[in-house]
Amino acid sequence: MFLQTLDILGTIAFTISGVSVAMNKKMDPFGVLIIAFVTAVGGGTLRDILIGVTPVTWMTNMTYVYVIFAATVFTVAFKRKINYLRTSLLLFDSIGIGLYTVVGIEKGLSAGLHPFICISLGTITACFGGVIRDILSNEIPVIFRTKEIYATACILGGITYFLLRQLPIDDNVVFMIAGAVVISVRLIAVKFNISLPNLYKNDPNRSV
Amino acid sequence: MFLQTLDILGTIAFTISGVSVAMNKKMDPFGVLIIAFVTAVGGGTLRDILIGVTPVTWMTNMTYVYVIFAATVFTVAFKRKINYLRTSLLLFDSIGIGLYTVVGIEKGLSAGLHPFICISLGTITACFGGVIRDILSNEIPVIFRTKEIYATACILGGITYFLLRQLPIDDNVVFMIAGAVVISVRLIAVKFNISLPNLYKNDPNRSV
Amino acid sequence: MFLQTLDILGTIAFTISGVSVAMNKKMDPFGVLIIAFVTAVGGGTLRDILIGVTPVTWMTNMTYVYVIFAATVFTVAFKRKINYLRTSLLLFDSIGIGLYTVVGIEKGLSAGLHPFICISLGTITACFGGVIRDILSNEIPVIFRTKEIYATACILGGITYFLLRQLPIDDNVVFMIAGAVVISVRLIAVKFNISLPNLYKNDPNRSV
Repeated sequence: MFLQTLDILGTIAFTISGVSVAMNKKMDPFGVLIIAFVTAVGGGTLRDILIGVTPVTWMTNMTYVYVIFAATVFTVAFKRKINYLRTSLLLFDSIGIGLYTVVGIEKGLSAGLHPFICISLGTITACFGGVIRDILSNEIPVIFRTKEIYATACILGGITYFLLRQLPIDDNVVFMIAGAVVISVRLIAVKFNISLPNLYKNDPNRSV
Repeated sequence: MFLQTLDILGTIAFTISGVSVAMNKKMDPFGVLIIAFVTAVGGGTLRDILIGVTPVTWMTNMTYVYVIFAATVFTVAFKRKINYLRTSLLLFDSIGIGLYTVVGIEKGLSAGLHPFICISLGTITACFGGVIRDILSNEIPVIFRTKEIYATACILGGITYFLLRQLPIDDNVVFMIAGAVVISVRLIAVKFNISLPNLYKNDPNRSV
Repeated sequence: MFLQTLDILGTIAFTISGVSVAMNKKMDPFGVLIIAFVTAVGGGTLRDILIGVTPVTWMTNMTYVYVIFAATVFTVAFKRKINYLRTSLLLFDSIGIGLYTVVGIEKGLSAGLHPFICISLGTITACFGGVIRDILSNEIPVIFRTKEIYATACILGGITYFLLRQLPIDDNVVFMIAGAVVISVRLIAVKFNISLPNLYKNDPNRSV
């Protein structure tokens, strides 16, 4: 129940982020809805396709469809007010990637895959909704462009998950600690402006 | 037989639209062929992947491959003449989305999915060939940019389909009426220049 | 063993090409790794999804993951030196597409598909890693833009494969000859600057 609530919060956060991007691109109402939808379910869809879980998850659980539709209508209606929510959004978004990461890992384990592959699947679940959103909006995906700690938080949470599974700890506790690591790493990195190392520091052709 | 003929006409219309976009981008012959191909089969391919029907449909029925190949060669050869066909093209394209919408819905029903998901699958089948065409051509997909009634026609046809299924009407008749709704909505919207509501009317940051 | 070695060489070549594109776009370390990864495995992944082989191949064989990771780190570290390898790169890349083409064809045959579809799958395996790399980097895919002989080499190799299978020749020999045709066509085309015919020669609207 608690996890379900967090999952819904994560879905809402991703939906709002999709609506914002689509409206900045002046898309029509149908475009806004589609971009919101793929931002929220794109990562899980790609994960399901890669491991062969079909029909993909959102097709067999209408809750996601209703939540995304309602969140899209709400965000479009209150767009100018939504900026006040910016801090809450970062929190929801971080909860979203934390939860999606662990869900993706567990789907990989169910399919009997190697821990590295499971961590990749967790990261795909958390991050590729945003990647597909950016491709459809004709942008280089934001997680490739900025040096922000985003996918890295997912990977660290994934490593935590597999380390803790070696210990005699209840599975649900492992789930929550790993998710908390993703969320904490992301929030701490934003708060203290920590970023990935710059590959281009000593590059004589540096253009920026 | 009649439906098969319409399906082929739809495939030809989508192929011609793909060739036109690719040639405007000055792509090489191989690029033109690929763009024509994904425009014609991309929507159905995404639908099949999402519901787990593999190998995807066009791989197990060579008719599509031959038709697309022939239509591509013909369109490239007679490019300058093809502009005279513009009105017929709109008709074929509308027949194409009408038919593809209903085919997608029926595939969703076979997979035991919720009516909303079936309508989404119908819309994906009809519209995502064009979306993939635009992504490969490095454009924001045209159905997201314009306020034209396109996906909306598919959705209205899909709703009609499920309403009629409640009545004691033969399945083939339901199929044809729903397809006719898609086609009519599309043609009437083009004729009378009807569009989706503008989300940005009162937006102080409006850039256009 | 010999084929496995060639496969690894091909994977390394594709990884290096992905890293080069990503670093030219000034992507962050995570973006560079992802682009390298999709360049190396993207074509095979799309092939597996289309025919329903899931979990996709790289998820069940960790060798690819380790090789791509090591090749990415190496290429980033020695980026300025890697330009000296340019000639070897063309060779590796050509070996890569030759091998990937035949592997794709054989996967299609295992799925019981028509020879034309098998040749398409071989071409997809060889070429679509680069296509996905370019889409993620927000470029029109390079194989659609240039008139270079690339996909054409794969198609010619595929035709050779099916012609030779009519003869009483050992399967492994057919495999190697078809791969050699892809590699030779590609290298000869580069050496003698042979290209696809220009579709736009007599076009009055020609912009270039």
